[in-house]
Amino acid sequence: MTSTNIDLALVQSFVDKHRTANRPIVLVTSGGTTVPLEKNTVRFIDNFSTGQRGAASVEYFLERNYIVLFFHRLSSTLPYQRHLKSIFDESQSNQSYHLDQYHKFKTSLLLIPFQTVTDYLTGLEQLCSLLKSFKRSALIYACAAVSDYYIPNDELTEHKIPSGQNELIIRLKPVPKLLGSIKGEYAPEAFVVSFKLETDEKILEEKCLQSADKYNQDVIIGNMLKTRTNQVRIYERFDKLWTTINRMPEKEIEYQIIELLSEKHRIYQMNMN
Amino acid sequence: MTSTNIDLALVQSFVDKHRTANRPIVLVTSGGTTVPLEKNTVRFIDNFSTGQRGAASVEYFLERNYIVLFFHRLSSTLPYQRHLKSIFDESQSNQSYHLDQYHKFKTSLLLIPFQTVTDYLTGLEQLCSLLKSFKRSALIYACAAVSDYYIPNDELTEHKIPSGQNELIIRLKPVPKLLGSIKGEYAPEAFVVSFKLETDEKILEEKCLQSADKYNQDVIIGNMLKTRTNQVRIYERFDKLWTTINRMPEKEIEYQIIELLSEKHRIYQMNMN
Repeated sequence: MTSTNIDLALVQSFVDKHRTANRPIVLVTSGGTTVPLEKNTVRFIDNFSTGQRGAASVEYFLERNYIVLFFHRLSSTLPYQRHLKSIFDESQSNQSYHLDQYHKFKTSLLLIPFQTVTDYLTGLEQLCSLLKSFKRSALIYACAAVSDYYIPNDELTEHKIPSGQNELIIRLKPVPKLLGSIKGEYAPEAFVVSFKLETDEKILEEKCLQSADKYNQDVIIGNMLKTRTNQVRIYERFDKLWTTINRMPEKEIEYQIIELLSEKHRIYQMNMN
Repeated sequence: MTSTNIDLALVQSFVDKHRTANRPIVLVTSGGTTVPLEKNTVRFIDNFSTGQRGAASVEYFLERNYIVLFFHRLSSTLPYQRHLKSIFDESQSNQSYHLDQYHKFKTSLLLIPFQTVTDYLTGLEQLCSLLKSFKRSALIYACAAVSDYYIPNDELTEHKIPSGQNELIIRLKPVPKLLGSIKGEYAPEAFVVSFKLETDEKILEEKCLQSADKYNQDVIIGNMLKTRTNQVRIYERFDKLWTTINRMPEKEIEYQIIELLSEKHRIYQMNMN
């Protein structure tokens, strides 16, 4: 596993090309970040995330006229690609529809991969800073599953941890929390949306409110590991408003999430742009 | 992330269907195993492995008339599928050749997925035991990257590890080593091949010899993380013989590995069947 660096010149030229079109722009972060346990990385800690939510959301943002930067875990789910069958899957499906959609929207979409949590944090700052000049037209939609703990680079061992010991103890430090820096520094006028994933229903609301207090996102979306494709709880910080979305039949829940968010973002842009 | 259980009845019927054909059969294990850090798993330790080697090897085993059980990490690289382009890749490639190859060989190939190291170990025993009756016609080709340390199920916490602590300490126990049980118990007459991946060249040979002493594989293949697609060192335990394979131009190195192994396996079958 190797580090990824963002080709900032490429991102800048993509962004500049679309700047005059007066369209909203979204940064979607997606997939889990890795925490290497060795410098020559064989072992790493990962966060469970298929990247399905991010990939689906990208498609719905594109349908709502957004320019999309898709900052995703390498090899996680990709928009459009996710609908194409494996050769081992012999079911029937309408692949040509999704291929057509891809070709319709591809010039508005830029794929930017990451792997480690360090690469993610560096990239998040760079990409948000690049969107700063879009002011209220920028939306940051952070659904990547970011590691909470990591081993700082100067504490990493060079080679593969030896096997054959009676116990292996791994000491991890908290990952610096940069979510608050988005509104605080990187892109203060952007509309910022982040996710909270929990496994214990009792603490979900409380965790969302704590997050809002700490990081000043405009919207926090709470979801439970087991029901995340069927229900989300959306909290708007400014209005102190909770909305529950239950999935409609024959639609992915991301369709409704993006429908709601793009409307909130539209109003946000009108307020002071 | 959920546990996987093998559909043993399905595997048994696949194996029985091919039994009369008098063909050799190979179990290929592939990809990294995961180590959950919580029962409701959000975080897990993973071993770096794309599953590329296992998937490529499957294709070359099929070309040499093997029946193949592909016991692979869910979502890791799949044979044939790996040659198909993503819709984001606009290069030209001859996909129809690989589709044709897939259709030619698909009835000889069974895909069996795993995720956690516990599922892997349970499945390895079940699948090897099922191959026992094939005696010397069975080859076990273990190239999965198996975790060395894990948290036993009764020491796992129920819910997601909380964030916000100053340090997180993870205590891991050694994973039971079942590799030796293949020759010792599960399928004593099978031809057993395993891999050793290291990042420190100086200890590679020594690690291979130690492994051979401990687990009685017939062949150990040593490879370095950085050069693994270009060079492997093959050790035959019975003859105490080292062979180095360097990749030929325009071939994957797995082509040469399987060419050599299938020849060794042919001789092994003739010796006492």
